[in-house]
Amino acid sequence: MLIGKIVGSVVSTQKDEKLVDRKLLVVQIHDHKNAPKDQYVVAVDSVGAGAGDMVLYASGSSARQTTLTDGRPCDAVVMAIVDSWDVGGDNVYEKWNEG
Amino acid sequence: MLIGKIVGSVVSTQKDEKLVDRKLLVVQIHDHKNAPKDQYVVAVDSVGAGAGDMVLYASGSSARQTTLTDGRPCDAVVMAIVDSWDVGGDNVYEKWNEG
Amino acid sequence: MLIGKIVGSVVSTQKDEKLVDRKLLVVQIHDHKNAPKDQYVVAVDSVGAGAGDMVLYASGSSARQTTLTDGRPCDAVVMAIVDSWDVGGDNVYEKWNEG
Amino acid sequence: MLIGKIVGSVVSTQKDEKLVDRKLLVVQIHDHKNAPKDQYVVAVDSVGAGAGDMVLYASGSSARQTTLTDGRPCDAVVMAIVDSWDVGGDNVYEKWNEG
Amino acid sequence: MLIGKIVGSVVSTQKDEKLVDRKLLVVQIHDHKNAPKDQYVVAVDSVGAGAGDMVLYASGSSARQTTLTDGRPCDAVVMAIVDSWDVGGDNVYEKWNEG
Repeated sequence: MLIGKIVGSVVSTQKDEKLVDRKLLVVQIHDHKNAPKDQYVVAVDSVGAGAGDMVLYASGSSARQTTLTDGRPCDAVVMAIVDSWDVGGDNVYEKWNEG
Repeated sequence: MLIGKIVGSVVSTQKDEKLVDRKLLVVQIHDHKNAPKDQYVVAVDSVGAGAGDMVLYASGSSARQTTLTDGRPCDAVVMAIVDSWDVGGDNVYEKWNEG
Repeated sequence: MLIGKIVGSVVSTQKDEKLVDRKLLVVQIHDHKNAPKDQYVVAVDSVGAGAGDMVLYASGSSARQTTLTDGRPCDAVVMAIVDSWDVGGDNVYEKWNEG
Repeated sequence: MLIGKIVGSVVSTQKDEKLVDRKLLVVQIHDHKNAPKDQYVVAVDSVGAGAGDMVLYASGSSARQTTLTDGRPCDAVVMAIVDSWDVGGDNVYEKWNEG
Repeated sequence: MLIGKIVGSVVSTQKDEKLVDRKLLVVQIHDHKNAPKDQYVVAVDSVGAGAGDMVLYASGSSARQTTLTDGRPCDAVVMAIVDSWDVGGDNVYEKWNEG
């Protein structure tokens, strides 16, 4: 999995029928020190994530292992909202300290 | 999924029989700010996308989860035509404002 | 799928038994403007492609969706010989104009 | 598989139910000469790895082939703790020489 | 598949039980002109490859299509020892000319 931030969403009316009612999130990828990278992925939401949330997303066939994405043409899923993480003993991100 | 623009198509008569009658689109990848990247993928169309459309495509085994691609040697599928998306609260792309 | 050119082949006698009699092609990857990239992949041939042919290849589990590659340890397959493609309304490659 | 070092962990309470009780490790990727790269992955632990351990992780659908990750939305798993490795006849890393 | 050279091996006693007795090879990736790249992968051996051998390896779910890797948390497998390959009509590598 990689860490990312929800920065937006995509609207599509003409799409595969198996994706109807699925929320398509724009996730900007962050590195392990929480620096944003100039990379993004569009992922289906499976955990109720919203704008500004730091999340984990899974790619490939693993993205189809949630109830909302099973058997669907979806190669990325947001499967966790991140509360905090640490690297080298230091707290890098703490949800409750934000905004 | 990644965002791309349909910029062309590929013609092939000698191909795996399971790909007969499948439309092969050249998709130029765009970043989340809608800047075109110097990267492309050839994807099977599953939603009736045409030249100039902004689309989402799915890769890998997820590309085989549509009716048109199930069980076929296809590693990328256009599974949504994008109406609009936003990043950081700003509208990045709006289909109805184009051309 | 990506576009490539068949530039060579690999000979291997000591290989997984499921790959016996499979032709292993060296495919140089081209971009959508037909410029060769300094990247290659070795792919199993499923369409009778030969040296100099422009082809499409599929990667990952999708590479196992042809009769010749089903259930085999093969992560890339040449599944189409390209006749032509266009980008932005211009013909980029036309097989019958070559050589 | 790639070699990495466990440098941290991620805490998430709101996640896919199939990931409850799974330990999410921050793995910094190392090259084959044991130099740390500026790349990371978040992987589920399946072998009891802890901070500072050098490990192997597997990606993609292969990450779901352990008892702890089977059928779960997880695209990376730590499936081995590395004791040592050699390159070109030289010992690159030896667990028992560390710290 | 990509071409690589066996440059070492990894020792791990604490690993997923399904990987017991599997040989873990360090494979340095070579380009199609046989130049070594600064990239490696750790792959399970399925063909009796040893130090110095030029090999092909397969990645992803395709790495689990050999008898030795079926159903195991392994995302790369050495599935062929290379005898020779050619590019553009020139012989790039010939096993019997080495060493």
